[in-house]
Amino acid sequence: MPSPLSSSAPARPHAPFAFPVAARYAGMESSPLKDIFALAARPDVVSFAGGIPDPSLFALADIAECYDHVLRLHGSRALQYGQSEGELELREQAARRLSRDLPTSAEQIRITSGSQEGLFVAAEALLETGDVVLVESPTYLAAVQAFAVHGARMVGVQTDEHGVLPDALDRAIRTHRPKLVYLIPTFQNPTGRTMPQERREQVAEVLLRHDVPLIEDDPYGELSFDGSRHRPIAALPGMSERTLLMKSMSKLMSPGVRIGWIRAEGPILQTLAVAKAAISMQSSVVDQLTVARYLEAKDLDAHVASVTGIYRERRDALAGALAPILPAGAHITDPEGGMFLWASLGEAYDAQAMLADAVAAGVAYLPGWSFFAENPDRSSMRLSFVTHSPEVIRAAAGRLGEVIAQHG
Amino acid sequence: MPSPLSSSAPARPHAPFAFPVAARYAGMESSPLKDIFALAARPDVVSFAGGIPDPSLFALADIAECYDHVLRLHGSRALQYGQSEGELELREQAARRLSRDLPTSAEQIRITSGSQEGLFVAAEALLETGDVVLVESPTYLAAVQAFAVHGARMVGVQTDEHGVLPDALDRAIRTHRPKLVYLIPTFQNPTGRTMPQERREQVAEVLLRHDVPLIEDDPYGELSFDGSRHRPIAALPGMSERTLLMKSMSKLMSPGVRIGWIRAEGPILQTLAVAKAAISMQSSVVDQLTVARYLEAKDLDAHVASVTGIYRERRDALAGALAPILPAGAHITDPEGGMFLWASLGEAYDAQAMLADAVAAGVAYLPGWSFFAENPDRSSMRLSFVTHSPEVIRAAAGRLGEVIAQHG
Repeated sequence: MPSPLSSSAPARPHAPFAFPVAARYAGMESSPLKDIFALAARPDVVSFAGGIPDPSLFALADIAECYDHVLRLHGSRALQYGQSEGELELREQAARRLSRDLPTSAEQIRITSGSQEGLFVAAEALLETGDVVLVESPTYLAAVQAFAVHGARMVGVQTDEHGVLPDALDRAIRTHRPKLVYLIPTFQNPTGRTMPQERREQVAEVLLRHDVPLIEDDPYGELSFDGSRHRPIAALPGMSERTLLMKSMSKLMSPGVRIGWIRAEGPILQTLAVAKAAISMQSSVVDQLTVARYLEAKDLDAHVASVTGIYRERRDALAGALAPILPAGAHITDPEGGMFLWASLGEAYDAQAMLADAVAAGVAYLPGWSFFAENPDRSSMRLSFVTHSPEVIRAAAGRLGEVIAQHG
Repeated sequence: MPSPLSSSAPARPHAPFAFPVAARYAGMESSPLKDIFALAARPDVVSFAGGIPDPSLFALADIAECYDHVLRLHGSRALQYGQSEGELELREQAARRLSRDLPTSAEQIRITSGSQEGLFVAAEALLETGDVVLVESPTYLAAVQAFAVHGARMVGVQTDEHGVLPDALDRAIRTHRPKLVYLIPTFQNPTGRTMPQERREQVAEVLLRHDVPLIEDDPYGELSFDGSRHRPIAALPGMSERTLLMKSMSKLMSPGVRIGWIRAEGPILQTLAVAKAAISMQSSVVDQLTVARYLEAKDLDAHVASVTGIYRERRDALAGALAPILPAGAHITDPEGGMFLWASLGEAYDAQAMLADAVAAGVAYLPGWSFFAENPDRSSMRLSFVTHSPEVIRAAAGRLGEVIAQHG
């Protein structure tokens, strides 16, 4: 007689329950970018990877004073439910700032929890599975993700040093019949490039001719190093009604506060509010009223001028340190504002493959391939110059130069 | 020769540009509920419509102290980018509270901007167009919207005074093969009903047998009037791994701060973080650290005990005032916690049609039809008892009684 032990069937191992995952997120449990940011966060690494403001430049005392003001004078309201459209004071302040470039009323503003939520709200409101979105090549990858999880297909449009090429845009519209075009005209992420006024007019002409709407993302436009202002494409004749213009306080005041807004006109404003309500009901009322108070009572322009003065020095430090260490034939951009510089090393280089050695040498960047909807330039890298002092930037760039030399 | 004026074609009127709207939001530019809330917000109306906490009960001084603490001691971090998963201190506090009922680690927590975003994140992660979601009949309508915009079809399951009927749930699962089941077991919205322990066990048995995941929404569970605690269904054997348990600080501390969390286990935690990042990058770091500080340094239990004592008096006032004015054959629920009471007047009544007269008499409620996925009880209404004092409640209920009598 077999023993009870041998006769009993082996205990079926407990199969853990697995949640079904929607196709839009299948295979996205981890990402190479997340791993890069984890590496870049090591204390022994100087990171050019993220677009992370230097926290020592935050207007902390002013912001704390505004939180205190709101909680002391409007506490019960700040802690209560608010409006999906956003709190009126903040919409008024947003409209006032936007009106420098484009007449805007508070009714044309929808508040979002940072411009990432703004992009997601816009995608919710507009996109169907299978829609094509035309993007700059390269473009901002988190926007691509917000569109992609709505089933959109991204098609990259060729760019030069002045941004998207009007002829290429025209051809792509005729070929792909896109639902919308997504552009970052000023101090673009990842390249740092800016579209001159003439190019903006050419692009607007193409969009108007084909009646295609635009999402114009402008989180960096006020970070100008020479004080010049670049009016949004939305401000060109005929464009305001067909553009969702996205703004953010993350790069001007604080990313941790998570406040941005969308400017729009017409019935789409209602849809944006309904989508926002479905996604997150409303943005933090405490944060909204605090940002409104900050814009009303403090001098954001003076703060931005002080910060961009420091950013300009850091851009100079990074550009200056990179010039002698880049291989012959490499290209780097010359950003007049914003946070990013873009380097393309040339065909012999693979920026992703080189990253492990760079991190071992104590310096990190973001490989550029991830910013392309298609046909990535694998030799490219995005380097943020805003986080570190010129001394730290120069030392780290020197170490990066040695790694590049080894890979040449 | 015709004059130049008559020969020229009439100027084509400028056709305003119309943004394309995704099918998921088509026709949702306005909603009857939004109109109701606008009416209910009139200063001459006592509103039972919204689940709006009485702002005089907010722990304003404590919360302001926590904002001040965070900005003074951790200001640079609070204003900086954070983690999509949520800040560690807050996840630890959330885990500590949940562990009273269900052992939970900080790694099992995902922070969201209120539980509306939690529901949306879960829908993003799990739902495909055409999926069926089983819901209580009636159920919380904003959850239904978060599911519906992902293309899901809601099927209502019959309930009694103890919540969803296990046999009906079993039949519905076999008939509809749902992707998930959505339940609010404790002090349900809209009915105020609570599932007893035995019913929870029967429901868990059905879900385990069919291997169907559960979204368990628990924003009200701690608002108990007799101090009794209701352990979540997620705490029953086998259920924690197949449940997304949703919690919110909106009803316990402040809805304006917009902080909630999801408890989950296993690989779905990664998908939830990726979805959260696509939707809004991360929740306000200032608000997260402030809520963490509040949970660490203040006595939320004592605050909740004080608030629920007042809510209980208000429930008594509303239930007591309604009893004599409801028609024969009407049913009202007897909630032991939460914010809502549910009245079903009987076939002769249409709560939507009656609302205009009620508002004219200075009292508002939410017609119940909107809480049904199908087969609405049009005579039903949801009444929140938390916003007003007993005196105000009694006076308004008296006026409502006159309106009901006119419609009988």
